[in-house]
Amino acid sequence: MINENEHERDERFMRMALAEAMEAYEAGEIPIGAVVTVNGRVIARGHNLTETLKDVTAHAEMLAITAAAENLGGKYLPDCTLYVTVEPCPMCAGALGWSQIGRIVYGTSDPKRGCFSYYRPDRLPLHPKTNVTSGVLEEECKGIMQDFFKRLRGKN
Amino acid sequence: MINENEHERDERFMRMALAEAMEAYEAGEIPIGAVVTVNGRVIARGHNLTETLKDVTAHAEMLAITAAAENLGGKYLPDCTLYVTVEPCPMCAGALGWSQIGRIVYGTSDPKRGCFSYYRPDRLPLHPKTNVTSGVLEEECKGIMQDFFKRLRGKN
Repeated sequence: MINENEHERDERFMRMALAEAMEAYEAGEIPIGAVVTVNGRVIARGHNLTETLKDVTAHAEMLAITAAAENLGGKYLPDCTLYVTVEPCPMCAGALGWSQIGRIVYGTSDPKRGCFSYYRPDRLPLHPKTNVTSGVLEEECKGIMQDFFKRLRGKN
Repeated sequence: MINENEHERDERFMRMALAEAMEAYEAGEIPIGAVVTVNGRVIARGHNLTETLKDVTAHAEMLAITAAAENLGGKYLPDCTLYVTVEPCPMCAGALGWSQIGRIVYGTSDPKRGCFSYYRPDRLPLHPKTNVTSGVLEEECKGIMQDFFKRLRGKN
């Protein structure tokens, strides 16, 4: 990409995370997707698989962190960025903290289940050097979630 | 076991979690072990494998939850008890919340990395019906951790 600024690059990677979310949607999973990059290169991607794997730990972020570490051959990810369509939950925030990930970019907030409402303000489990950016492609990331739950309610 | 009361049963299962922790110790992993039971029967066990798997998410509790769900064929664990030698971290507490586990029994507290110091008092991510018991075989669970870190420091 030529002359791509950081915001444009963030949107590009968030679109890939949205494509992952769409795969989850089509599989009947809560549509959340994630991508991990290092130096502008995608090294891992994943989407929520809690229903398919019958495993509450199989969130998009968890699968992406594990895949990124496997790809890099080391468990710490200080030079990596995680793009995820929805604000991580407390479990995923804890995992991201352990990974020492360099940057987290998320699309839409989750006031009910998002990590920022759970932790004490002075004890967020993220590494002190981790940067957080929110609101990238927020409408699209929120829209796919709303569509999913609307469709789900329609079925019941 | 005949005439075994709840405390004795808790100690028996915590000894199994300690045996898992010892396996971690011998593999050079931070020695934390976990066991999941249902109706007094062990359905899953695990120990910390973060170094071996080069995966920060491979905590004893995470592996045990995943194995228990696989064993039961469903992702929720409301009738299960998790025995773990050390107070769960924020990531594991989040996962235990998602699993709706019925009861958590841990050995020794972790003032630095344990979940209870991270969360807002009114927003612990555990399911409201989850019971928590602490201090079962506390000295043994603490002792194996202290031995590990003492040995580690001796090497450096």
